[in-house]
Amino acid sequence: MTILLTNAWVLTIDDALTEHNRGWVQIDGTTITALGAGAPPDVPDAEVVDCGGDVVMPGMVNTHCHMGMSVFRGLAEDIDDRLYRYILPLERKFVTPEMVRIGSALSALELIQGGVTTIADMYYFETEVARVCDMAGLRAIVGQTLADFDPPDHGDFDEGFALVEELFDTFRDNPLVAPSIAPHAPYSTGLKTMERVAHWLADHPDVPVQMHLAESALEVAWARDNYGKSTIAVTRDAGLLKPGLICAHCLQLDDADIAMMAEAQVCVATNPRSNGKAGRGVAPVEKLRHAGLPVGIGSDGAMSGNTLDLFSQFAPVSMFAKLLAGSRKPLPATEVVRMGTIEGARVLNRDLVTGSLEVGKQADIIRINLDAPRLHPIYDPYSMLVFAAMPSDVTHSMVAGRWLMRDRQVTTLDARKTVADANQIARQFKAEMARIDSQAP
Amino acid sequence: MTILLTNAWVLTIDDALTEHNRGWVQIDGTTITALGAGAPPDVPDAEVVDCGGDVVMPGMVNTHCHMGMSVFRGLAEDIDDRLYRYILPLERKFVTPEMVRIGSALSALELIQGGVTTIADMYYFETEVARVCDMAGLRAIVGQTLADFDPPDHGDFDEGFALVEELFDTFRDNPLVAPSIAPHAPYSTGLKTMERVAHWLADHPDVPVQMHLAESALEVAWARDNYGKSTIAVTRDAGLLKPGLICAHCLQLDDADIAMMAEAQVCVATNPRSNGKAGRGVAPVEKLRHAGLPVGIGSDGAMSGNTLDLFSQFAPVSMFAKLLAGSRKPLPATEVVRMGTIEGARVLNRDLVTGSLEVGKQADIIRINLDAPRLHPIYDPYSMLVFAAMPSDVTHSMVAGRWLMRDRQVTTLDARKTVADANQIARQFKAEMARIDSQAP
Repeated sequence: MTILLTNAWVLTIDDALTEHNRGWVQIDGTTITALGAGAPPDVPDAEVVDCGGDVVMPGMVNTHCHMGMSVFRGLAEDIDDRLYRYILPLERKFVTPEMVRIGSALSALELIQGGVTTIADMYYFETEVARVCDMAGLRAIVGQTLADFDPPDHGDFDEGFALVEELFDTFRDNPLVAPSIAPHAPYSTGLKTMERVAHWLADHPDVPVQMHLAESALEVAWARDNYGKSTIAVTRDAGLLKPGLICAHCLQLDDADIAMMAEAQVCVATNPRSNGKAGRGVAPVEKLRHAGLPVGIGSDGAMSGNTLDLFSQFAPVSMFAKLLAGSRKPLPATEVVRMGTIEGARVLNRDLVTGSLEVGKQADIIRINLDAPRLHPIYDPYSMLVFAAMPSDVTHSMVAGRWLMRDRQVTTLDARKTVADANQIARQFKAEMARIDSQAP
Repeated sequence: MTILLTNAWVLTIDDALTEHNRGWVQIDGTTITALGAGAPPDVPDAEVVDCGGDVVMPGMVNTHCHMGMSVFRGLAEDIDDRLYRYILPLERKFVTPEMVRIGSALSALELIQGGVTTIADMYYFETEVARVCDMAGLRAIVGQTLADFDPPDHGDFDEGFALVEELFDTFRDNPLVAPSIAPHAPYSTGLKTMERVAHWLADHPDVPVQMHLAESALEVAWARDNYGKSTIAVTRDAGLLKPGLICAHCLQLDDADIAMMAEAQVCVATNPRSNGKAGRGVAPVEKLRHAGLPVGIGSDGAMSGNTLDLFSQFAPVSMFAKLLAGSRKPLPATEVVRMGTIEGARVLNRDLVTGSLEVGKQADIIRINLDAPRLHPIYDPYSMLVFAAMPSDVTHSMVAGRWLMRDRQVTTLDARKTVADANQIARQFKAEMARIDSQAP
């Protein structure tokens, strides 16, 4: 089966940022087999899609998310102690496989509608998240979380590891959904569990590992007070700071930490909206990239960042870099778009299959309509994408040659039912919050 | 003529943030005559609009814009010296009444589509901006800019003042579009012109005055080096720091400046995206508000902030306050929504007529559709508006009882022709930029 996208403004996001105006892309099965400018090839029986001058570009890569948490979106906003007052109690009481499935489906809808085609996720009951990504058609790295604070889906390490094994048994051979292991964070996973995970990884060197790292001042204090070193050094000495480790957040770093991370060849997922909303600080994205670390962009969970598309992250990631430097020059729009596509793919070790439109790569493609007056004029399509485009401009999405959305209609999930199910869970949460408030001192 | 909006989630943004679930709003002519919850009144011959549970709220107030500049959107993005290299030469060569008209129409489309119903603008050939706002149906404060750097529309003070007089002669009695005077900024207007404006204002106490203030380190240095005091003190001593002065930006302030501003009872228009993108810094919004100054939100021109809706500003204004404080608590979502509506109206001295839904006020109303999965669940509508809603969710807009948009269709402007005209201007700009580049050393 051949699909031909024609009459498109093709932004390939290859190394040279090659563009094809009035361009075309040929897709055979799951793969991009040709692309260029001028007259498209004549392929009998091909599905020809005239894109009417729209932008066609690689689907975006969201490098850090907790899809199950979208049912918490906007809960107890702006309240400093919301984590201990509401969220942990609610998680302990209500996080079930069903809740995770519904939250993940709500997230999958938003991701597809917002132009994301590859997602890295870590949460509880992660096999459910994997099932939803599989059904939705997303490319995904799904990490079962391990933590020692009595999380909702496991008690001790062995129970947690049983969930890891369930995930790997179920999704080991899935072409799009890759199982992953996710120690929650140094302070919340604990040294002993980190060392056991490192030991297991020695025999499983290709497994992607995701971890929150250097997210808060509390974490830095935990490492210093208990081990007399930085949280990065604790992670290194536990054996987890290895090539390809996907490090989320990375706010609290000094130059020695960055050097350690660069030497270990880890990768970074920055979450500007989540970090900004929490008042936690700003990741040193320019420093990290200059040290040679690939930096992708993540949304974090909807409880923390509220939206899961990357357009919502583009202006913050850019503004934070410019404010840190006191200049409009750092992290130009082209680099932000790279971070949202090919560099994000590199963070997830998927840059040979996705993140740019090149012959031989998987057909992970989105189409962006340019009708909105707010997008014009367009002096530079990268500026337009970073500072003016919004999720509602994305009309079509495809992963591995399969349409996930056409004309804004997601084809793989039932939007109406999913939203209704999520709101049903929210009613339970609201009742429990009222109960908590009524018992508060 | 009566219009009845029924079956709406009415967010009044009155002092008590009164909400009416399954509420209704009655509009007679230009005015809100009743609103409430429960069964709507039975008014014969009324136009009844069933809002299907959508949010109905006051239209937003954008307190600082340069509508004519939307034709510069994204031009020379990320280039540090773009102002002197491209923008001033382009302005000098191409800013004509026609360019201002086309740019303003493009901006008016975006403002209406993004939920803004009141706009404060300052630019050149401002009578053209006023004409566009009048045609578009927007409520507007339109300020003719005065500057001493040989701006595109006037040479000396007398020529500039002739444009002010043209604007006032044409729009003195317009019910929605109010003429204003806009000294560009202390460093760019100069002490002598500032004093002449202050002298004229003594006889015109009700005229709104807009000014860029404390925007850059250069401006602070100018005031210190030339006058040995802060830019706020220079403005005060020139006689312009008077009650109601609309001060845009206000980044470079110390506590003495804030006290001076509070004593003078000026108002502030903060422009977080524009300031962040320029790497210029972050306005001390919490400090200003705690000092009793009303702070509204502005988009700045599309050349600086790229979008003109306020949703794009909500997350940045909130994140900046939280990052400054190192906590998720400051400037909660309710306050951000107030700043975007009633507090913005106060900044423009329009809080008796717009900015909230209350009986006797003008019917400046928007309707927000809640179908998008990314908006759910909704624990709190203010969090939803600040961190999840987007311009594409606004479906209807009304100013003084007149529909400006229904079902996403702007009824007062020709979108297709306006975008085409703007892109025609952009082609001229691109050619001139190529010429500039070819002659650069």
